[in-house]
Amino acid sequence: MKDSKRSSRRQLLQMGAAVGGGLLAKHEQASAAENKPGQLGIPLGPYGERSPFEKAVRWRRDTKTPETGSSFTPLQDSVGTLTPSSLHYERHHAGIPTIDPAQHRLVIHGMVNRPLSITVAEIRHLPSVTKTLVLECGGNSGSEWAAKNGPDVQRSFGLVSCSEWTGVPLRLLLEEAGVQPGASWVIAEGADACRMERSIPIAKAMDNILVAYGQNGEALRPAQGYPLRLLIPGWEGNANVKWLRSLKLTDQAYMARDETAKYTDLMPDGKARIFTYQMEAKSIITFPSGGQTLPGPNLYELTGLAWSGRGRIERVDITTDGGRSWVKAQLQEPRLPIAFTRFRLPWRFDGREAVIASRAVDESGYVQPTREALIAARGLNSAYHFNGIKFWKVQTDGTVTNVEA
Amino acid sequence: MKDSKRSSRRQLLQMGAAVGGGLLAKHEQASAAENKPGQLGIPLGPYGERSPFEKAVRWRRDTKTPETGSSFTPLQDSVGTLTPSSLHYERHHAGIPTIDPAQHRLVIHGMVNRPLSITVAEIRHLPSVTKTLVLECGGNSGSEWAAKNGPDVQRSFGLVSCSEWTGVPLRLLLEEAGVQPGASWVIAEGADACRMERSIPIAKAMDNILVAYGQNGEALRPAQGYPLRLLIPGWEGNANVKWLRSLKLTDQAYMARDETAKYTDLMPDGKARIFTYQMEAKSIITFPSGGQTLPGPNLYELTGLAWSGRGRIERVDITTDGGRSWVKAQLQEPRLPIAFTRFRLPWRFDGREAVIASRAVDESGYVQPTREALIAARGLNSAYHFNGIKFWKVQTDGTVTNVEA
Repeated sequence: MKDSKRSSRRQLLQMGAAVGGGLLAKHEQASAAENKPGQLGIPLGPYGERSPFEKAVRWRRDTKTPETGSSFTPLQDSVGTLTPSSLHYERHHAGIPTIDPAQHRLVIHGMVNRPLSITVAEIRHLPSVTKTLVLECGGNSGSEWAAKNGPDVQRSFGLVSCSEWTGVPLRLLLEEAGVQPGASWVIAEGADACRMERSIPIAKAMDNILVAYGQNGEALRPAQGYPLRLLIPGWEGNANVKWLRSLKLTDQAYMARDETAKYTDLMPDGKARIFTYQMEAKSIITFPSGGQTLPGPNLYELTGLAWSGRGRIERVDITTDGGRSWVKAQLQEPRLPIAFTRFRLPWRFDGREAVIASRAVDESGYVQPTREALIAARGLNSAYHFNGIKFWKVQTDGTVTNVEA
Repeated sequence: MKDSKRSSRRQLLQMGAAVGGGLLAKHEQASAAENKPGQLGIPLGPYGERSPFEKAVRWRRDTKTPETGSSFTPLQDSVGTLTPSSLHYERHHAGIPTIDPAQHRLVIHGMVNRPLSITVAEIRHLPSVTKTLVLECGGNSGSEWAAKNGPDVQRSFGLVSCSEWTGVPLRLLLEEAGVQPGASWVIAEGADACRMERSIPIAKAMDNILVAYGQNGEALRPAQGYPLRLLIPGWEGNANVKWLRSLKLTDQAYMARDETAKYTDLMPDGKARIFTYQMEAKSIITFPSGGQTLPGPNLYELTGLAWSGRGRIERVDITTDGGRSWVKAQLQEPRLPIAFTRFRLPWRFDGREAVIASRAVDESGYVQPTREALIAARGLNSAYHFNGIKFWKVQTDGTVTNVEA
């Protein structure tokens, strides 16, 4: 910490004219322009909104069925390690249901001794835990397989977000219901129109899954499953069933559409890997990134986000010369397991073309692979679970573009 | 961790009929009522809002000048450890200015070698850090001094909130400007109509203060100082100047209105303590709390929030018998310094009157005092810096009220 403080300071002292150069004359000019003295501001209010000057929004493709599809978090505007709930990515299959929590029930049935129907109010007063966790769609950055890369970090990597979640350990509910011997799967079903279903092995269900009702200090947002959803640490978003209404204990997987036709990995030999739930280590530079422009040669903070479904981020390496050399980035503490870790590196753009990328290493020792290594292992049939290293090109005029693979 | 897991489980297993008792018949009934199968939900959208069923808002007294005053966070609805930005408490002296970040400048002047005028864009690309920090108004729960207690936890204790903040260490900016020998104070000034000012000793300014531009993963909200504010870890909210426009280095404090006429502690001998910046350890039960009603005898999760301007929360004790006996609450990890720590204790309400309270201990060993001990030390002249233990009474019918001191 001391060392990293000293290093930041050294960096800043080198910045010279970059930051400085301001004069008191400028001060007077600025204060007159920005705010008329004596003019009262806006009154205190019951519920605050963001500044009208802040325009970041989720992005989605125009389609005839906007109830099914994805909307992408504007990672290029992210700061810190959390995603604002209003900007959390979406991936829905039949739109967002409007659910009255007073009417909603979570039912636990199938191979249990005591079938339960639990109200939301009851769940909110059970023993709870809070965890900051990343959620990533299994299809995030899938276009990178075919090198049909999105032009910016939002459209290519924006199906990932991080929130503080609060809920009841699923294990407690299952123990209350009494799981019968032989029950090996939990079939989770949502209350959306398509009754989205996923199969979860009982071992994971008894480990660390949450039935979450809280997100970033308040109730879940409707787009994230209000009033109840599953939170499965480290597993692809789709399995974290939203608008949770039913958990059925069975002795076999359900082989639902979203675990057979979708979210599977078609391998080079034509066979598909299924139930590949866990998301591997990944990282992405958010500044500078595609579509942004550096105003000129200067010292900048190069920054981005790293995460892993396996646990903590241990290290992030940065290259600014297309992968020939790598240096360690500073990691924001605390590094929480299966959460965004913000990384940073002061970097001088000197007006020469630079090809930049980040490479995450997690606490299991897993190293984020190159795109080429991923393709060598898994071929080009897959649309899911891409976690290859991502390069951006900073051009001599400061514009930043995607690097065609 | 293992122990706390086992203990939660033991608690839940005791709950019996409280949670259970549901039947599959209820399941069918519930599913029919809540959601018509096949009906598409709301489309994906650019910016998500909360559920129309969630109504929590900040509260403020009706006044003729709603630009000056306080609005209180609904702590009774809080979950986890963060406050949603939309519900962060407010304390303004001349309303919320609307500031265009492209026009705004931060000026550093006075006893410096190189006066600076810095744009918001420049600040956003300087070396940054992210910290989760509590902010508490120096006047929070001031009505407790006179036992004119608010009826609920929002109106009596709601001038405290916790966010993830991102910004540039103030020290880096001061070093860039070059602080002259003999400069011992930094006078911070806001861009609101009243030009709110506070004096900060240079030692603290060179320690751990942030010039923050980020809150909970996005830009600061206007009500929290957009586009720039000070974040002074552990110090009363008022010193964390919002809409920051100027930092002037001087060799004396400014003796501004808000550090002389206000935010001072009038002692029994008629002298006032001033510059009492640091907030002490404090805690409050948020459920069950004043104005809430327990639906009946049952096992409940008793829960609340603890924090300290001195660092981490080390322990929270709970009494349910008016202070005769105390037991340790479970503390949510990670316990971050100068941030909300959520505490929890499974508690059985058996239909008999119970007087409940929490008592925080921080890592410095400081123990949250009783109201009586505070009054013995500081008399009854003060309106600020009350951090006494707060009792709620759970009545036999389940209603929860304030306990008159």
